[in-house]
Amino acid sequence: MPSVSNKGLTMPQSPIRKLVPFAEGAKKKGIKVIHLNIGQPDIKTPQQALDAVKNNNINVLEYSRTEGSEEFRSKIAQYYIKNDIPVNANEIIVTTGGSEALSFAMNTIADTDDEIIIPEPFYANYNGFATACGVTVVPVVSKLEDNFALPPIEEFEKLITSKTKAILICNPGNPTGYLYSKEEIQKLATLVKKHNKFLVADEVYREFTYDNKTHTSILKEKGLEEHAIVIDSVSKRYSMCGARIGYLVSKNKDFIATALKFAQARLSPPTYAQIASEAALDTPDSYFAEVKEEYVARRNLLITELEKIEGIKIAKPQGAFYCIAELPIEDADHFAQWLLEDFSLNNETVMVAPAAGFYATEGLGKKQIRIAYVLDKESLKRAVHILSEALKNYKG
Amino acid sequence: MPSVSNKGLTMPQSPIRKLVPFAEGAKKKGIKVIHLNIGQPDIKTPQQALDAVKNNNINVLEYSRTEGSEEFRSKIAQYYIKNDIPVNANEIIVTTGGSEALSFAMNTIADTDDEIIIPEPFYANYNGFATACGVTVVPVVSKLEDNFALPPIEEFEKLITSKTKAILICNPGNPTGYLYSKEEIQKLATLVKKHNKFLVADEVYREFTYDNKTHTSILKEKGLEEHAIVIDSVSKRYSMCGARIGYLVSKNKDFIATALKFAQARLSPPTYAQIASEAALDTPDSYFAEVKEEYVARRNLLITELEKIEGIKIAKPQGAFYCIAELPIEDADHFAQWLLEDFSLNNETVMVAPAAGFYATEGLGKKQIRIAYVLDKESLKRAVHILSEALKNYKG
Repeated sequence: MPSVSNKGLTMPQSPIRKLVPFAEGAKKKGIKVIHLNIGQPDIKTPQQALDAVKNNNINVLEYSRTEGSEEFRSKIAQYYIKNDIPVNANEIIVTTGGSEALSFAMNTIADTDDEIIIPEPFYANYNGFATACGVTVVPVVSKLEDNFALPPIEEFEKLITSKTKAILICNPGNPTGYLYSKEEIQKLATLVKKHNKFLVADEVYREFTYDNKTHTSILKEKGLEEHAIVIDSVSKRYSMCGARIGYLVSKNKDFIATALKFAQARLSPPTYAQIASEAALDTPDSYFAEVKEEYVARRNLLITELEKIEGIKIAKPQGAFYCIAELPIEDADHFAQWLLEDFSLNNETVMVAPAAGFYATEGLGKKQIRIAYVLDKESLKRAVHILSEALKNYKG
Repeated sequence: MPSVSNKGLTMPQSPIRKLVPFAEGAKKKGIKVIHLNIGQPDIKTPQQALDAVKNNNINVLEYSRTEGSEEFRSKIAQYYIKNDIPVNANEIIVTTGGSEALSFAMNTIADTDDEIIIPEPFYANYNGFATACGVTVVPVVSKLEDNFALPPIEEFEKLITSKTKAILICNPGNPTGYLYSKEEIQKLATLVKKHNKFLVADEVYREFTYDNKTHTSILKEKGLEEHAIVIDSVSKRYSMCGARIGYLVSKNKDFIATALKFAQARLSPPTYAQIASEAALDTPDSYFAEVKEEYVARRNLLITELEKIEGIKIAKPQGAFYCIAELPIEDADHFAQWLLEDFSLNNETVMVAPAAGFYATEGLGKKQIRIAYVLDKESLKRAVHILSEALKNYKG
């Protein structure tokens, strides 16, 4: 029997994948599982996006333009300009989700065995795309005690070699919820300019910033134009994860021209999803204000309730909708499985994402879990209560 | 300024990409361009597929299941069973177009510098996916004089090394229109079994077979179960190229489990497109009978008209909707550009795909063009007339 590739063998799996059968097992026993493990918002998709698809008048569902239509990209550019980010339509490629934008970016800047430096913990799929592209991830540890702030810039500089092609950040962060300050972004900008590397920023959670903090896009940095690559997506912004529409944005013309070659091989992004996404761009600001208010309330409730748990340490999130907590246990993988296999309270249990899978360095994050606060406050409160009672009963 | 990857620099472009500005130039001069260059059918998408999307009742456009829903994959399995191909839902991964299926397949079976043998001419984007995956394409020449039949199996065997991971075929072929016989498939099957390699078949044009010839899926071959990987798509079958839904099909469990890891990294295929595609599976056989009748009529007209051109050689297609013709010229690239820049008849001209871009071997196919017969008969007839008159005027 022919064998699969080493790439395939070493391709990392999602941190929660091995928990899925246990969640299914719990459900079979009639236990309700509250999912704190996934970043799928429960927020309604903007009505105009849904309506645009329902009211489409397509007769032949043709290929669309590889980089997205002129009109769609112009509207995206207007969105950026409204957010004080100077971008034009030709600096944008529409992709099949932020995932594809990331994959194109890696292929465009890095060859096999090249390196990309990423502060850890980071979105686990960065590892997956790196493996698929043959790229090596070089992690820099950020710490829960610092709320996962940017590690000292010297830590990045120490790791830069001729193989380094880029530094990749997620801002605000999944899984950390950390929002980089303008000063932190400027330190990164200075570093990549000094060493002539790319700076890739996954800014898909741009709108989700709290406590009156504002987001600093790398596209705003003067002098960084040739270095800055932004990964973006409609998934979280408009609660339309299933659309699978993202964007790749850069003012570096060579980068865009080359990324477009990778885009051409896959022909075009999905048409219906582009109809929905283009309409979503007309979503009124009041939608975001409401959504933001809701997430702040959820975050506050989550933090308040989590802080009641003895021995817990929490990195207080200022953006996105994730929170990393360190529990008074030794092995969050084991605990997460035990919650699904052996624990319930009033016939309910919770599923959490063990955080070790978000670290590239072996052994880090073993006591940590990631909680996504994308559930209504009532469910969140119940979930934390279950977690709290579970910790009292857990023998390790 | 940081530079793009070698992968990016060597990433091949579509054979028609460089003609696009000339086509736009012609249009600006008020000349109508008849597109013989693209495989975008003009056939109406089945009504139930269009209606399913218009009548959807989504409120939160959530991620779907990574491999496609149980229901959708079960329906796809039923489609295969109806076509005498014994496949079950767990042997299918739903992908974002056949493109993604191919990319997952290459990553799953081949590491950097591994080799895949492909009869040329072949679908140009195979080169693109190979470059992105770091895989080397090893071509075997098939000939216009033989209608692009399978080259002698010894030609394949000579090229097999320890780096060879698979033989990849497209059946019926794009750009050749050739339909492999059962005997040819069996020769390939025997060879890959002997050398323990994969056999990958792009069968997206499965329904488009003419002259009472039937299609032989590699999934039907006894003893080939662990070797056979099929790339499939709804794009051409249901004239819904813009959906971007394909499938990866294999009975090799390791292959499917590993490909699923690549699929997980990109989360899920587009939701609206899956709704349309699932509904499309209910398309009545009468739809295909009509579509087939139309393509046969177009092909017959195309061949009849082309044969009137002095010095032309044509590979008569028995499947798909492409035809390769060798023209009495030296450089089809130049001729194709000249058609757009310098020629018109009654204010119309034609755009063709120069075939050299479908060959991996430098210098092959220079006199050849690919014609897609996805236009109504009237336009096709006019297009061939323009081509014929152009050849009389062309100075080379």
